[in-house]
Amino acid sequence: MPRKNLAAADNANLDRAAREFPHPGSAPSDPRTPSAPNVDIAGRLRLFAEAFDSQLRRLLAPVGDAPASLVEAVNYTALAPGKRIRPYLVVRSCELCGGSRDRAWAPGAAIECIHAFSLIHDDLPAMDDDDMRRGRPTCHKKFGEAIAILSGDALAILPFELLGRHVPDSGRAARMMLELASSAGWTGMIGGQAVDVQGQSLPPSVELAGYIHERKTASLFAAACRIGAIAAGAADAMVERFGRFGRHLGRAFQIADDVLDIEGSSASLGKPVGKDADANKQSLPRCVGVAESRRLAVQEIRLATAELGEFGSAADDLRALSDFVVVRNY
Amino acid sequence: MPRKNLAAADNANLDRAAREFPHPGSAPSDPRTPSAPNVDIAGRLRLFAEAFDSQLRRLLAPVGDAPASLVEAVNYTALAPGKRIRPYLVVRSCELCGGSRDRAWAPGAAIECIHAFSLIHDDLPAMDDDDMRRGRPTCHKKFGEAIAILSGDALAILPFELLGRHVPDSGRAARMMLELASSAGWTGMIGGQAVDVQGQSLPPSVELAGYIHERKTASLFAAACRIGAIAAGAADAMVERFGRFGRHLGRAFQIADDVLDIEGSSASLGKPVGKDADANKQSLPRCVGVAESRRLAVQEIRLATAELGEFGSAADDLRALSDFVVVRNY
Repeated sequence: MPRKNLAAADNANLDRAAREFPHPGSAPSDPRTPSAPNVDIAGRLRLFAEAFDSQLRRLLAPVGDAPASLVEAVNYTALAPGKRIRPYLVVRSCELCGGSRDRAWAPGAAIECIHAFSLIHDDLPAMDDDDMRRGRPTCHKKFGEAIAILSGDALAILPFELLGRHVPDSGRAARMMLELASSAGWTGMIGGQAVDVQGQSLPPSVELAGYIHERKTASLFAAACRIGAIAAGAADAMVERFGRFGRHLGRAFQIADDVLDIEGSSASLGKPVGKDADANKQSLPRCVGVAESRRLAVQEIRLATAELGEFGSAADDLRALSDFVVVRNY
Repeated sequence: MPRKNLAAADNANLDRAAREFPHPGSAPSDPRTPSAPNVDIAGRLRLFAEAFDSQLRRLLAPVGDAPASLVEAVNYTALAPGKRIRPYLVVRSCELCGGSRDRAWAPGAAIECIHAFSLIHDDLPAMDDDDMRRGRPTCHKKFGEAIAILSGDALAILPFELLGRHVPDSGRAARMMLELASSAGWTGMIGGQAVDVQGQSLPPSVELAGYIHERKTASLFAAACRIGAIAAGAADAMVERFGRFGRHLGRAFQIADDVLDIEGSSASLGKPVGKDADANKQSLPRCVGVAESRRLAVQEIRLATAELGEFGSAADDLRALSDFVVVRNY
């Protein structure tokens, strides 16, 4: 299909998605999504997660001697059931830029470790004080606070070891490490979490919610896509393109998360519903309502998929994934 | 002086150091140390710390927008008065390998940030629960636990951003990042801290104390020296040599720390004395006594300085530093 028609189809489908979103209950019976009707993205993600997890398990074997307590806590969190959306973005960005999947496993594992690190520390009593995560006790509930802090620390450092050991081209390795550090650090994810924690004592603000979304989620989604493109040796313009795709996708993902926190069910989220609202967390629906939040999420999805035009049907799974992050029910 | 005579002089001087060590009170009036009588190492460290701190202040400016609370907490800890021994090792290893000092500032800042990260997290209530550090309230006492955890996280990630941005040769940058990640991660410093915390419920053990020393301290000292050599583009054999020097020095440093915790004064340590013994921490003096610990520290210093033979008087400051770490009174 020519690019223009694809975009028109996207718009019609997304308008439908906006009306129905988040629509809990429809996804399990029909996991196909409107923009790319021939892609069963939920099924693809499941298959991907299986393949990725066996790579992650291999890459998580310490090179040298690490205390058993840390190894157990790191594996408990990093290998907990999850959708693996971030490593999926790394691997597929790499493939769409002409790189082989094998080049993307370690970079994908690096991104997933950073994500796992953020989950452990965000759940700590001094932060969000969460007891459950992905349907299981959080790391500090299971292993105690000291080991939880340290296993988070280990998962913050390990990505750089993985990239250093497993990316054969040292120029690309150094570039990926810089992408990861700048997106995860104090001007990125960690900075977003600081404002998230401190924003609980402030009145709801679109600006604050946007600041948090941008840094806690969008910057790491963007980095995942950029790192995948770098792994393939893509030109700078392509790295930028994938970065924009990831950033818009990440924003939509986080808005959907905020909406789900209000509208979802506890069983499907794997954590108590309404917890964020209870804690006076900054969130977009608290500022502009659920309907406007949905509209903004769909707008971000539209901006995201607009970056994929040149890839034609090869990027159908990423279009389906883009819809999936706003209609998911988990 | 030929290498053999130097070694003989070292031995005689170190035997004296062993008898006198840790000898609080002598250092301030006569900061020169026996192995290198013409080097005022305490004075050199002070001058170095001044120059380094102005570089560190520059390098700590966030690239992008970071929350003010994090910036304040990171600066409070990373720029707190300190001896800057680790960055001194980076810079001097680089210079002795023929590299210019300018190449070593960012790598030195990276090592100091990792060190500052470990101080913040080690002091947390769930870990060592310390209220004072370097004569000032610890980070969590000053900024609260959430910001302390996050500023530690920021200081764990920032080193990789600094190396990625400021080391022009990407091959060397990637190699330094791998050195840093593997020495600081779960098989290194973080692993050592986990055993340190868990070892408090176990009977005193030379093996446990050695495991902790090796990982919490020696591995980062070794990495500092290796990274300095890599910054200069040194050959592998030279990187290994500097790594061995740093490892022995780090072991001696940690043994001396354990002895000072028993024998030092609170004012000179900047933290309560006897705290480690109270907490049933694993420490070498608890296992083998103070005299035997001194002997072992001096043995490590002898092994460290043996690596410096080929540099002649150019390495006198590192010899003096080696003595200094076991006779220091601060």
